[in-house]
Amino acid sequence: MGKWLLPESLADILPAEARRIEELRRLLLDLYRTYGYELVMPPLVEYLDSLLSASGEDMDLHTFKLVDQMSGRSLGVRADMTPQVTRIDAHLLNRAGMTRLCYCGNVLHTRPRGLWATREPLQIGAELYGHAGPEADIEAVQLALESVRRAGVADCRIDLSHLGVVRAVLEADPLAAARADEIFGLLRDKDVPGLAALSAELAPATAQALQALPALYGDLDVLDRAREALPALPKIREALDMLAALARALPGIEIGVDLADVGSFHYHTGVVFAVYCGGWPNAVVRGGRYDDIGRVFGRARPATGFSLDLRELAGLLAPATASAAVRAPWGLDPTLVEAVRKLRADGQIVVQILPGHEHDQQEFVCDRELVLRDGIWQVEQLAGAEMAATPPSSTAN
Amino acid sequence: MGKWLLPESLADILPAEARRIEELRRLLLDLYRTYGYELVMPPLVEYLDSLLSASGEDMDLHTFKLVDQMSGRSLGVRADMTPQVTRIDAHLLNRAGMTRLCYCGNVLHTRPRGLWATREPLQIGAELYGHAGPEADIEAVQLALESVRRAGVADCRIDLSHLGVVRAVLEADPLAAARADEIFGLLRDKDVPGLAALSAELAPATAQALQALPALYGDLDVLDRAREALPALPKIREALDMLAALARALPGIEIGVDLADVGSFHYHTGVVFAVYCGGWPNAVVRGGRYDDIGRVFGRARPATGFSLDLRELAGLLAPATASAAVRAPWGLDPTLVEAVRKLRADGQIVVQILPGHEHDQQEFVCDRELVLRDGIWQVEQLAGAEMAATPPSSTAN
Repeated sequence: MGKWLLPESLADILPAEARRIEELRRLLLDLYRTYGYELVMPPLVEYLDSLLSASGEDMDLHTFKLVDQMSGRSLGVRADMTPQVTRIDAHLLNRAGMTRLCYCGNVLHTRPRGLWATREPLQIGAELYGHAGPEADIEAVQLALESVRRAGVADCRIDLSHLGVVRAVLEADPLAAARADEIFGLLRDKDVPGLAALSAELAPATAQALQALPALYGDLDVLDRAREALPALPKIREALDMLAALARALPGIEIGVDLADVGSFHYHTGVVFAVYCGGWPNAVVRGGRYDDIGRVFGRARPATGFSLDLRELAGLLAPATASAAVRAPWGLDPTLVEAVRKLRADGQIVVQILPGHEHDQQEFVCDRELVLRDGIWQVEQLAGAEMAATPPSSTAN
Repeated sequence: MGKWLLPESLADILPAEARRIEELRRLLLDLYRTYGYELVMPPLVEYLDSLLSASGEDMDLHTFKLVDQMSGRSLGVRADMTPQVTRIDAHLLNRAGMTRLCYCGNVLHTRPRGLWATREPLQIGAELYGHAGPEADIEAVQLALESVRRAGVADCRIDLSHLGVVRAVLEADPLAAARADEIFGLLRDKDVPGLAALSAELAPATAQALQALPALYGDLDVLDRAREALPALPKIREALDMLAALARALPGIEIGVDLADVGSFHYHTGVVFAVYCGGWPNAVVRGGRYDDIGRVFGRARPATGFSLDLRELAGLLAPATASAAVRAPWGLDPTLVEAVRKLRADGQIVVQILPGHEHDQQEFVCDRELVLRDGIWQVEQLAGAEMAATPPSSTAN
């Protein structure tokens, strides 16, 4: 096999795409910073125990395992950075008040999470620790939406759910609580016949609620329908009020509600949300509340946040346009060296043409040239430079 | 064991240090861009065959191995990004002319490369493909030096060597060429008695050269001493001329020469260099020429470049100063929302204080506050804000 072949669902990112991803990375990290989120960088690998202690079986299957020569213990390559950031909040920073943290890094999955998915997403996200109230969820959702808007993605909508609804139904019925995993599975698969069969063995109120849930999706009307169809439990009312408050804080965006969306029940505890953009079938941003996950690291804390894959987000945007550059001759003459230095210090791209390569095709669009006129180095427009606005190839930077 | 414990020689990067690393990352990638280097992002893991095909045994021992569930083949976590970038140049971009590429990413080592070294360097570097002349080496060295200068590191010096010198000595004597690995090992360890013992079995000219080499280090005078002590072979003259030309292109910096520096003989083929800074015992930047390494990926090309560890570079600099922020109340009032939005759009950090957390210690230095006066939201200086210039703690951002 060719030595240049890459494993399935892994790829090099070439200049035009890398440039766009780098721009998005800076844009979003700067955005999170203006909201007061501090950057942290957890390691690529950790002891498997630590890495998986705050996540479910699905994450275990997606995690690459390694042997640590130094300790003899098993290591895992992170498949999700959120548990790492939770560990940093709980144990390392250990602050009494609220902590806002953001991060950006590669994660690795043993198998792609979908037909076209990469096994190496570039995960970026923001997490807010120490606040259990709706204000924190609102900030997380607003920042998630702001992320895709700033990136320039049009036509976004958000889907909301609240894991407190199903949990409240189960808590009210010990028979149902004992079969929680099974019930979450049926709800996740929207298995209506399965739910009906199971309901025969549960209390009537539970049965009614579980059979109503798969139909409780749609626009904000769902909240009113849910108040009628679900038992009048305080925790259910609280969750529905919370979703209504969140919706009021998000004017001007299409909102969907799906109360049976329990895909992340192993992890999330309250509001969960997903942002969909421009006809792309998968959620671009996913987030939600995951209170008390930090307990395994020594401190239970309220927590909410979101993350997205920068590669996927970049793929939704128009290609990066090629950058204009100045071509300059090579030489050690101090006046030339100084002229080139000055242009670069101004942020100009100056491509020095090394001897023997005067006729190379340039990947940057060189629309100007540094030339010596009357003893002074000057930037002059290159003939044919009016074509510079069109990138010469898809890998042009 | 505590779930929060990290494996030896791996660490979380907390806000103050992460901020400094992120600033350096941008500074250097922007610098490389102004020189016409295009950013690429190779994957974290590759087939082991590909990853190691362009490197020596040392790299094999330092590479973490994984099993790919999808192909059943062995994967390696990259321990060095240079071979990956060489693969991209040779196979993916496959350009006829010169290609300048840069990159920044985590690499992983099975064991630390020194007493205080991390097992997860954040490697950043620049590589120039397709030019065999001294101009390319000069550009690589100048850009390496500019990297540490721009970062703000004072007191740098550069060590130069040229692997062509030893290679020319070996090529001239078939007996020596047959024992090349052994000889490189003795030279690397500066094992003078060992070289003397071995010399008895070699041609007199070879013996004389190998015994002279360990003493050929010092300042630029070494080049003159080498012309006297080493055989008058054309390739040796060429290499010494090359080093002299390189030195002339680097005015105002302390230059050391060590012709027996052959530590990277498995990989490098011509000029090699190392930049040392401010009393730090290890080289901060390492680079050199590695022509024809791309052959395994289908195309032999001249190549030169350098790389450094951003974490190590950041460690040489003064701590990042804490950033000033504006504290603002939380609320959905449109005039407040707009006032906060505007400040953030101006690049200001605005920390909204969520209900119940009015008295939290803030990690940002909030030296101003957004307050409502006569119906207008205004930024006012906070009492005691003259203390804002001093960071409150080492993890302050």
